[in-house]
Amino acid sequence: MSEIEVMAEALRAGETTAEALTRCALARIAEQNGELGAFAVVDREGAVSAARRADVELSDGIDRGPLHGIPVAVKDLIDVAGLPATRGSAHFSGHRATEDAACVRRLRAAGAVIVGTTVTHEFGYGPTGDRSWHGPARNPHEPRRMAGGSSGGSAAAVAAGIVPVALGTDTGGSARIPAAMCGIAGYKPAFGRVPRDGVFPLAPSLDHVGVLGATARDCRLVVDALAPQHSAPHRLVGTVARIGWLEAAARTPVTSAVADLTWGSLSEHDVTHVPWDAQDAMGDAFSAIQNSEAFATHADRVRDQPELFDAEVLDRLRSASDTPGWRYVRALHAREAAREYMSGLFERFDLLASPTVGITAPLLGQREVTVNGSSRAVRSTLLALTSPWNLLGFPALSVPAGYVDRLPVGVQLICPPDREDLLFSVADSIVPSCAGA
Amino acid sequence: MSEIEVMAEALRAGETTAEALTRCALARIAEQNGELGAFAVVDREGAVSAARRADVELSDGIDRGPLHGIPVAVKDLIDVAGLPATRGSAHFSGHRATEDAACVRRLRAAGAVIVGTTVTHEFGYGPTGDRSWHGPARNPHEPRRMAGGSSGGSAAAVAAGIVPVALGTDTGGSARIPAAMCGIAGYKPAFGRVPRDGVFPLAPSLDHVGVLGATARDCRLVVDALAPQHSAPHRLVGTVARIGWLEAAARTPVTSAVADLTWGSLSEHDVTHVPWDAQDAMGDAFSAIQNSEAFATHADRVRDQPELFDAEVLDRLRSASDTPGWRYVRALHAREAAREYMSGLFERFDLLASPTVGITAPLLGQREVTVNGSSRAVRSTLLALTSPWNLLGFPALSVPAGYVDRLPVGVQLICPPDREDLLFSVADSIVPSCAGA
Repeated sequence: MSEIEVMAEALRAGETTAEALTRCALARIAEQNGELGAFAVVDREGAVSAARRADVELSDGIDRGPLHGIPVAVKDLIDVAGLPATRGSAHFSGHRATEDAACVRRLRAAGAVIVGTTVTHEFGYGPTGDRSWHGPARNPHEPRRMAGGSSGGSAAAVAAGIVPVALGTDTGGSARIPAAMCGIAGYKPAFGRVPRDGVFPLAPSLDHVGVLGATARDCRLVVDALAPQHSAPHRLVGTVARIGWLEAAARTPVTSAVADLTWGSLSEHDVTHVPWDAQDAMGDAFSAIQNSEAFATHADRVRDQPELFDAEVLDRLRSASDTPGWRYVRALHAREAAREYMSGLFERFDLLASPTVGITAPLLGQREVTVNGSSRAVRSTLLALTSPWNLLGFPALSVPAGYVDRLPVGVQLICPPDREDLLFSVADSIVPSCAGA
Repeated sequence: MSEIEVMAEALRAGETTAEALTRCALARIAEQNGELGAFAVVDREGAVSAARRADVELSDGIDRGPLHGIPVAVKDLIDVAGLPATRGSAHFSGHRATEDAACVRRLRAAGAVIVGTTVTHEFGYGPTGDRSWHGPARNPHEPRRMAGGSSGGSAAAVAAGIVPVALGTDTGGSARIPAAMCGIAGYKPAFGRVPRDGVFPLAPSLDHVGVLGATARDCRLVVDALAPQHSAPHRLVGTVARIGWLEAAARTPVTSAVADLTWGSLSEHDVTHVPWDAQDAMGDAFSAIQNSEAFATHADRVRDQPELFDAEVLDRLRSASDTPGWRYVRALHAREAAREYMSGLFERFDLLASPTVGITAPLLGQREVTVNGSSRAVRSTLLALTSPWNLLGFPALSVPAGYVDRLPVGVQLICPPDREDLLFSVADSIVPSCAGA
């Protein structure tokens, strides 16, 4: 059972109240947030009064479903009416959201209790999660390491057991990367499924709302509340899925311990190695699109108040401005070619899979990492396996595969939009294990 | 009556034959093409045998409609099976098309007789029409002047009376600009209406197949044969159209003689001046999109065989490669904003109008022009008023407004896609006159 379902059952059995759950979450924040840097803003009063309303409703027989009375957190890139909305940046240090984002409205309509906002890498522009106006998000498994990013605060809050789920965003892996590095589940539904109104943009053709949860099932419950889907689902026949294992390690840094652990996590299924020659082209296309769209989002701020950016984020934006337009145009063509290629694979396989990230969590501030004997840039290493699914917009889920050297590792499952049921049933079959411990 | 209709009537009355019309066109090419440089390839045998087939069909009672047996020409950017397809470039000096472009197939199915291919500015990338592997297209009104471009050969062929209509393309005005400067009609239907398979691309989100005709009605007959439309037409109530006259001259070089003549050509209608503040933004957006897409089309040729390009075209491509991706992304947003603005104007006006080009035909090779006392670049002056409608994809028609200093001037009419009938009925009301003669 998922954490949400455990809480939901306890609530309906009268074993706890929404207020008690919320006060417990608030108490954990008070204890742990100093070390974790997970929360940007804690809304004690708002959360307690929302929890009380949830309790009154339940006792009046009004039941809004599985999220009713459940404490949740929302990434500081998503507007929550009345709360500061800094987007992790000094540019918005004094800004407050006046309205709820569409996804926040839906969370509230489902009865969820928002306890606060979580730290984001500045403007969501970084998979390391350690450059924010609020300071770095830290990994609950080892606080001198990154939680990952950009939804690092949401991942840390869930991994530390403060809330069972939190909203994030995912432009290149921003929900799945910190989920993998913090040992929880992270889900990016199909592009466009969850509305983005009120979510601060980074690269609009790549931006997704994502969910970080204690388990895959927790993620699924939230996504279903955010965006009910009514299409006929493609379910698994029997219990064994045909999985295409993308041969990522040939082109991207993946340690052998991570490769073995993640591959082994799918041993119940019929797993076939699939060459992934298109990976470089997809990576180039992703970069050209993200660079162009991200700089288009921020060009005026870079021109007018560059000093308000974190220095690393500013450098990255300035480099992004150099991508030529014709590369963007070619990237759009490459995106279509890659979509066709992957659609062909999805005729042969139920799902595709790979490690979520080829390494375990680096240290805060670390920018080079040695993988299989050669030095690599941390950022591109973190993004290599997740960003292709932002390019193509397919649903992609990271679930814990186990631990390498006591640090969490995630395995990523990818499917076409109509195979979410199958994706989540395979996710349920994965039992985390240890390697090299 | 249009030239096509005159010919069609004569054919059916037995006063002429398709073969006679074709031999007449071929004879005129033989006489005039040395001076005009209009044709790249003349297909005597193919044309005569197609004309004979058309005659046999007509005598057998098979009537393919108004284009049956009519001689036409096709721009050398559009594939005609079996004929050389150079695209005006040394890059394709030995190339032959193996299949007809979709629009050529439709022309043939409508019974038209293709007499040859017409000279294009290299790869369609220039409104001056004077840089082609085949040499410059010359203006029949004064052969030391430009026919305009890039469909300069098609315009010269029609204006010289060789064929009543010719296919062109239009990415920034390539059908309308030479039509205006040669004193004929040029029409760019709505984006996507005429299929582009087999048409060599320049900037795919701006590229249109266009038609150059002796009269607007000739253009219409061809477009209807290329792409029958079945939507309910929006017709003119009465005979007076509400026309919004875009105040172009404030921002773009337009000589006062051209402004007066074109404005005066619409005097039967209810014409209102409309400020056009968005023009600069539309021009910038057009340039960013054309630069990015055109270089994406040609990047490999620029890298591998730059020496095969005309030097001016190569320079222009190299400059185009500098447009940053974020400008392309912003241009896509600006395009949407401009579309919204213009849609608002189309609620108040039946049509919009402006001069097609603010000046008369410059000399071949001329690159600076003095307009109202200041020196301007010829290329941007030619493109300023036509390219916005490539950006937005609205139908746009240039019809002769008369003459300034014995050189032709065109007036441009623009409409939403469902108002073609109205557009052409206003075009029929325009009587060319003279100014400053």
